[in-house]
Amino acid sequence: MLTTLMNLYIGVHCYNNLVWYAVIVQTNSICCRLKSSRSLHRFIVKGYIEFGFKKIITEGAKDGISCGNSLADQAFFDSLSSNTAQTNSAAKSSNQPNNASDPWSSWNVGKSGNWDNGNAVDSWATKPEGAAGQRNSASNNWEAAAAFGHPQAYQGPAAADDDDWDDDWDDPKSASPSYLGYKETEASEPGGLQRGNSRGAAMKLPLNKFPGFAKPGMEQYLLAKQLAKPKEKIPIIIGDYGPMWVYPTSTFDCVVADPKKGSKMYGLKSYIEYQLTCTNTNRSVNHRYKHFDWLYERLLVKFGLAIPIPSLPDKQVTGRFEEEFIKMRMERLQAWMTRMCRHPVVSESEVFQQFLNFRDEKEWKTGKRKAEKDETVGVLIFSTMEPEAPDLDMVEIEQKCDAVGRFTKAMDDGVKELLTVGQEHWKRCTGPLPKEYQKIGKALQSLALVFSTSGYQGESDLNGAITEAGKTYEEIASLVADQPKKDLHFLMETNHEYKGFLGCFPDIIGAHKGAIERVKESDKLVATSKITPQDKQNMVKRVSTMAYALQAEMNHFHSNRIYDYNSVIRLYLEQQAQFYETIAQKLRQALSRFPVM
Amino acid sequence: MLTTLMNLYIGVHCYNNLVWYAVIVQTNSICCRLKSSRSLHRFIVKGYIEFGFKKIITEGAKDGISCGNSLADQAFFDSLSSNTAQTNSAAKSSNQPNNASDPWSSWNVGKSGNWDNGNAVDSWATKPEGAAGQRNSASNNWEAAAAFGHPQAYQGPAAADDDDWDDDWDDPKSASPSYLGYKETEASEPGGLQRGNSRGAAMKLPLNKFPGFAKPGMEQYLLAKQLAKPKEKIPIIIGDYGPMWVYPTSTFDCVVADPKKGSKMYGLKSYIEYQLTCTNTNRSVNHRYKHFDWLYERLLVKFGLAIPIPSLPDKQVTGRFEEEFIKMRMERLQAWMTRMCRHPVVSESEVFQQFLNFRDEKEWKTGKRKAEKDETVGVLIFSTMEPEAPDLDMVEIEQKCDAVGRFTKAMDDGVKELLTVGQEHWKRCTGPLPKEYQKIGKALQSLALVFSTSGYQGESDLNGAITEAGKTYEEIASLVADQPKKDLHFLMETNHEYKGFLGCFPDIIGAHKGAIERVKESDKLVATSKITPQDKQNMVKRVSTMAYALQAEMNHFHSNRIYDYNSVIRLYLEQQAQFYETIAQKLRQALSRFPVM
Repeated sequence: MLTTLMNLYIGVHCYNNLVWYAVIVQTNSICCRLKSSRSLHRFIVKGYIEFGFKKIITEGAKDGISCGNSLADQAFFDSLSSNTAQTNSAAKSSNQPNNASDPWSSWNVGKSGNWDNGNAVDSWATKPEGAAGQRNSASNNWEAAAAFGHPQAYQGPAAADDDDWDDDWDDPKSASPSYLGYKETEASEPGGLQRGNSRGAAMKLPLNKFPGFAKPGMEQYLLAKQLAKPKEKIPIIIGDYGPMWVYPTSTFDCVVADPKKGSKMYGLKSYIEYQLTCTNTNRSVNHRYKHFDWLYERLLVKFGLAIPIPSLPDKQVTGRFEEEFIKMRMERLQAWMTRMCRHPVVSESEVFQQFLNFRDEKEWKTGKRKAEKDETVGVLIFSTMEPEAPDLDMVEIEQKCDAVGRFTKAMDDGVKELLTVGQEHWKRCTGPLPKEYQKIGKALQSLALVFSTSGYQGESDLNGAITEAGKTYEEIASLVADQPKKDLHFLMETNHEYKGFLGCFPDIIGAHKGAIERVKESDKLVATSKITPQDKQNMVKRVSTMAYALQAEMNHFHSNRIYDYNSVIRLYLEQQAQFYETIAQKLRQALSRFPVM
Repeated sequence: MLTTLMNLYIGVHCYNNLVWYAVIVQTNSICCRLKSSRSLHRFIVKGYIEFGFKKIITEGAKDGISCGNSLADQAFFDSLSSNTAQTNSAAKSSNQPNNASDPWSSWNVGKSGNWDNGNAVDSWATKPEGAAGQRNSASNNWEAAAAFGHPQAYQGPAAADDDDWDDDWDDPKSASPSYLGYKETEASEPGGLQRGNSRGAAMKLPLNKFPGFAKPGMEQYLLAKQLAKPKEKIPIIIGDYGPMWVYPTSTFDCVVADPKKGSKMYGLKSYIEYQLTCTNTNRSVNHRYKHFDWLYERLLVKFGLAIPIPSLPDKQVTGRFEEEFIKMRMERLQAWMTRMCRHPVVSESEVFQQFLNFRDEKEWKTGKRKAEKDETVGVLIFSTMEPEAPDLDMVEIEQKCDAVGRFTKAMDDGVKELLTVGQEHWKRCTGPLPKEYQKIGKALQSLALVFSTSGYQGESDLNGAITEAGKTYEEIASLVADQPKKDLHFLMETNHEYKGFLGCFPDIIGAHKGAIERVKESDKLVATSKITPQDKQNMVKRVSTMAYALQAEMNHFHSNRIYDYNSVIRLYLEQQAQFYETIAQKLRQALSRFPVM
């Protein structure tokens, strides 16, 4: 963890003094996160933070360096001083609920979520969103279980530390212009810091890559007199099941295959490159893990408040070039790509298409830069949506939002329960249970061997049969040990994917609740003439659009969920039945060898 | 354990001062045994022993009370002083191999067994036999495993302490006359003390009930000019498989059933009485556990050096009247009786027949007293045998004896291995494994419950199916937990029975080796005119008879073993196959409920 911090610090410092401060402030969230893991590191981190805060308050606050994301960032500097001060005091206050252990706790407790806690409510600018930068859920069952370190345990994605950033991402320059956009968000969101998806504490983020994924975008979106006509449009229609995204007429998948080791810098740096082939074009491009990670971040920044973007398989330091690891990573990258290809909005987006269809290195670099400059990100993604339906009223909007919150929270619990149980079962099936069957097999064979020394005539048939029975139990041991790979693995992978999805919802719900909260308070602003009644009407309309988007996404989520769980449980049961049938068959075969007396 | 000692002490003290000393000396073996269990008790016991030794040496040794077993005991008093002194020093010497942990270690190490260790070899009278009093194998796998105290563990017979002697055996008078015959044996056998069958440390013996089951009988048998013509004859013939007992033309079994609670002393003492019905006569008698125990001891005393007499199911203090315990005890008494009925020598013996066929209380008491006065016990049982075959030469005799020793030792290891593994498997199958299936079941049902709150249409089929799959896993949990009773139980019981048999062999082999040793040394005795050449010839003949008896018994043992293991492993495999088939079937049924998408 300390290494993580140092990397951040050093890596960023090279470019810009202000950036350095930013990173220092950023450590604040890491500090909170560490509370639940290692206190020694927390202590070290604390030093950085306090030092950092002083610096940023006294020197860094008003430098006003703008870096390309002007729309998203413009409201930031006006409120920086108060925000950082607030954060500082919040960090010191032990009254703050510590959400490190449950990303859901903050907005599930009270009706209005956690945005009111300990923050002055005189202006929206001081209200932090439950937005991005929340990849910090240090404690979830999956990681906790994996941390047992049982060699036969199901190796969840967070099984290893994640220090290969430099290897997987050794080209930091392309990402530098947008540090501030994300950093400030982190600093100003004490309540929302601990939320996040399942990538866990070990994830090192390129914190500089989330422009606009922050509260300023919210005011921009809700209060803009007229939204800039975006080039892109994300239609929402009303289907049989309610609001829905428009599904493309032809779908495609992307096959991730053929991992190859490549190197650069005269062999000093090695990496694995995967071949991605679109099923519609049948053309291939190559990508390294770090490119996937780049895509993930772009998608998170752009769609993350409307669409759950599940995280990639985790990074890993050791064994990155081991066959088993490469196979597992490829399988998960494949699952992730398929998931993205299946999503009507994500799969049609420019950044995603460009990722799959660039023709040469130059086109890839150009596309990459363009995507990084995209301003339609964060809350602003809702500005691209125009539902073909009458506006919803606020009561309905809030109810729908709460319902989604309740469902996703409950499902998250359910999925985690299944993962915990599955993890335990995996360990038993690959550890003690086959060992026991092996022992039974050995004991039977030993006994047969002893019997064969009796000198008594006519028992060789029996002894042969007992030996075979013993071997059968050894075979059963192998069957038992291999079985989880054939069934439990898929059940686990699906649940793990869904855990990833569900981990995104606190932010999504947070954004919606934040918007609803603002509308609720808008009357006061109208009364004090801070906004006009028309402004308020716009706000309601825009929150309604958000609600439609949420429903469209939930309908997409549900239909996928039903399909996925049906498939995977069927597979599981089928494989389990076959497994038990095979064992029974083997036992009957062993039985048939025994002489009838 | 302390209670045990006190009981012995007090219970016996009431009758006779000399008896009291006997019991004190007897605690010596208990002390050794305790080494491997509880040192506090050992400490307390030690006080008794040393006190006891002093007493018996200074006062008790030459009292010369004779009690009915004159033939067996006559050689004893001449050698008592030297024996007790020897024992005393042996007990204090740490060079003595501690055989507490392995009843086999003593005679398996060297060729001539442990009889030479630390004992003067100037006269046979000072050489202890590896004879009776051997129920002390404190540490064997079965008891050790049961001692984990896992509530779901396979409840082996030594699972509970055994303080119900007074209840199960509340009529000590009939047994008192023959204390000394056994006591002296114990005191004079430091090397043979730790051997024994599987009844374990918790067994309290009526130590006074083994007249003649001691070395003096050996001289009597080997050196008597002419053996007294015994009324009984045990024929040994040569069959297809070598020497064999003569099997009766009609066999019978004995059904143990209908356990009823009885009481005596105006309800102060309660006991369970079982109904025993012979399949040949169809007549019934009733017996309490203590009567079985009496029979066991008579059989052990009479046949124990020629035929392995497996011990009864253990006594138990608590829960003696609980249904489950009574059922288990009855099942084991049944197995034991069947085993005895199956043995051609035991089943035809007077004591056994009388146990099953007395007509009234008076006849039972008369028969009981008669059996207790039987002098054809211990080594003298061989005097009833006249094999219809030429004498074997000494080389062959010794080879056959060694072969039996090797086989029974190896089988003992094999059986214990299987019992250990089975015990472990039993625990898993009744503990963690079903709990895990239950958790899987619950997790699936929880998930289905969450899914049903989605508000999304058309997923009720899936949710119903997932719920059913969850319930199926709960059913599987029950199947898994119940299965060991249906298959592993019988495998364990059979192995446990055989462990009992095999635990008798060290004494059997010990007796044979003792006799062989004497023949080997007889040349010296002939040379010094202590015995005549005719005496020596008689000795060889009688050792040859013993060897035939051993072979006859081994052939009986092997044919039973082959039948028993064939039956029980067949049963096990059949039940296991059915078990897995049932699970597979249930899973297929659950699978069929899932909608096809």
